[in-house]
Amino acid sequence: MIRISIDAMGGDHGPEATLPGLVRVVERRPDARFVLFGREEIVRPVLDKLPRLKEVSEFIHCDVAVRMDDKPSQALRVGRWKSSMWRAIEAVKAGEADACISAGNTGALMAMSKFCLRTMADIERPAIAAIWPTIRGESIVLDVGATIGADAQQLVDFAILGAAMANALFDIDQPTVGLLNVGVEEIKGQEEVKEAGRMLREAALETMRYQGFVEGDDIGKGTVDVVVTEGFAGNIALKSAEGTARQIGEYLREAMGRTLMARIGYVFARGAFARLREKMDVRKSNGGVFLGLKGIVVKSHGGADEEGFAAAVELGYEMVKSGLYEKTRSTLDLYHARKPAVPAVDAASRV
Amino acid sequence: MIRISIDAMGGDHGPEATLPGLVRVVERRPDARFVLFGREEIVRPVLDKLPRLKEVSEFIHCDVAVRMDDKPSQALRVGRWKSSMWRAIEAVKAGEADACISAGNTGALMAMSKFCLRTMADIERPAIAAIWPTIRGESIVLDVGATIGADAQQLVDFAILGAAMANALFDIDQPTVGLLNVGVEEIKGQEEVKEAGRMLREAALETMRYQGFVEGDDIGKGTVDVVVTEGFAGNIALKSAEGTARQIGEYLREAMGRTLMARIGYVFARGAFARLREKMDVRKSNGGVFLGLKGIVVKSHGGADEEGFAAAVELGYEMVKSGLYEKTRSTLDLYHARKPAVPAVDAASRV
Repeated sequence: MIRISIDAMGGDHGPEATLPGLVRVVERRPDARFVLFGREEIVRPVLDKLPRLKEVSEFIHCDVAVRMDDKPSQALRVGRWKSSMWRAIEAVKAGEADACISAGNTGALMAMSKFCLRTMADIERPAIAAIWPTIRGESIVLDVGATIGADAQQLVDFAILGAAMANALFDIDQPTVGLLNVGVEEIKGQEEVKEAGRMLREAALETMRYQGFVEGDDIGKGTVDVVVTEGFAGNIALKSAEGTARQIGEYLREAMGRTLMARIGYVFARGAFARLREKMDVRKSNGGVFLGLKGIVVKSHGGADEEGFAAAVELGYEMVKSGLYEKTRSTLDLYHARKPAVPAVDAASRV
Repeated sequence: MIRISIDAMGGDHGPEATLPGLVRVVERRPDARFVLFGREEIVRPVLDKLPRLKEVSEFIHCDVAVRMDDKPSQALRVGRWKSSMWRAIEAVKAGEADACISAGNTGALMAMSKFCLRTMADIERPAIAAIWPTIRGESIVLDVGATIGADAQQLVDFAILGAAMANALFDIDQPTVGLLNVGVEEIKGQEEVKEAGRMLREAALETMRYQGFVEGDDIGKGTVDVVVTEGFAGNIALKSAEGTARQIGEYLREAMGRTLMARIGYVFARGAFARLREKMDVRKSNGGVFLGLKGIVVKSHGGADEEGFAAAVELGYEMVKSGLYEKTRSTLDLYHARKPAVPAVDAASRV
């Protein structure tokens, strides 16, 4: 049995999307159990219409719902202790749930998760990991926006966190890891990235194969299983790729509707287009995973529909089932047992 | 008459691609004239077969050709004063050409351009600008890899350079300008980006409309004409987008060849696919423009074919014709006339 706490109020569509999403999950993973947090008068009517979900869920009323446009500080001020988002996270801390899923606003969810769960020992900053569809399958990219800037040690931490996630999710013993960098020789990269590369090479951890630097176009190629970068560049890479995918989808739609011949061709190739759409379906890889916290939190896209939200929940489910947390902990222990004493100035000299 | 100096040796295919590319240019722009630099025994045989090009070109032999994998320092050491790349750049400095085009390696071309041409007064660092196809048309994104990191003043300089280029190239009086940032509230962005935003707002230049922050997915949407960022994030955004476009192209090919029905559909929709391919054709937007130097230098993709190289040359041609350099200079003057005394510490505190 895997117990998952749900912020039922999160997302653009609230319980209308989150609850039907859970029905799909329970159909596919019969051992999933839910604790739902939200406003009674909004959640209850939807839940009452979903007997299958009702059977496997507990509902807990919360007065406050964090809004999609609340700033993190505002959300914390208004919603700490009592919002559906906070209570869902807290259920993980209290051991009442194995993972928490919310489609609420990212900044608020990260702020509350950090405040409530705290980071794991040896981890200074959490990261948000995205699952990125590639030509070879899927890769993990982190950090995609938890924190701006990262020093070398933090990049190494991200590599460890990402490798543990790849191990848990893709069932690969030694996931390949690359540091995202720019390709122009000599000005090649930030000092932190170079230093992180040296540290990863020296550590020679058995839980990953460090492959050196990768560039932006290596992500989609699936050159490595785990792409490590700091949050600013990672967020921009992710959004640029999403934007490009949408842009090409737009071109394709426009091209296919333009002439009679094209429309006839489209009818014949319908199956192929369906296949393409499925490949490009962001819903399937929905879910930003918060790594480095004392508990598993998954952020679903705010605009996710039922299937999108279900994918995020199933991602959390899989990571609990495959022991993400324990795998992360043991890699961290391995690294720190092996690591020479850290020059304290290195960590302190950067904000 | 527009005179363009050409590093005929640059690129993966050398004169076999560059020279036929120039023939296309002269067919479309009869007032283009060329000065070609390269090794006699390699360039001459190709040139002799292209009488149309020969008529409008001067050829100058150079002993040295910078290799695609030379490091910038190595290229400078071996190729300064005498390589085809250096001599092509020098022709601009000497006033013998209006712009220089090379498909040679980016790092070497930038190092030599900086060394030979120097940056414009008031500009500390040059930027590489890319032309990015968008749903609305085209936008300019800079810096895509000239320098890692940029302080607020340098980002403002990039905005001025980019706006002048948009003005020259797209013929827009007041191009819209956005600063690339991440969307998560509160942790929103690097300090330098926020500060640059304040400076641009205060300066209220008539030569652009500053629109605030944009995110990675705004680039492909064409939200603004000019997207400003530092070189690390810019390079990663560009390469991620390129990678995604290739990845989707791959999916599409695979989907269309998979079943008989799809293949039949493809035959009917051939015209539409051709149109799509044209839209996605990177050759058409080939050319990274070096901005902020005392002269116009355009970097063509190393792998560019004839048409790709022609596009880069025509980009240089257009920018000379539309007075890019003068437009940049006058916007810079306007900005600096209006700017309050700079706190010197701001520029000095960053590397």
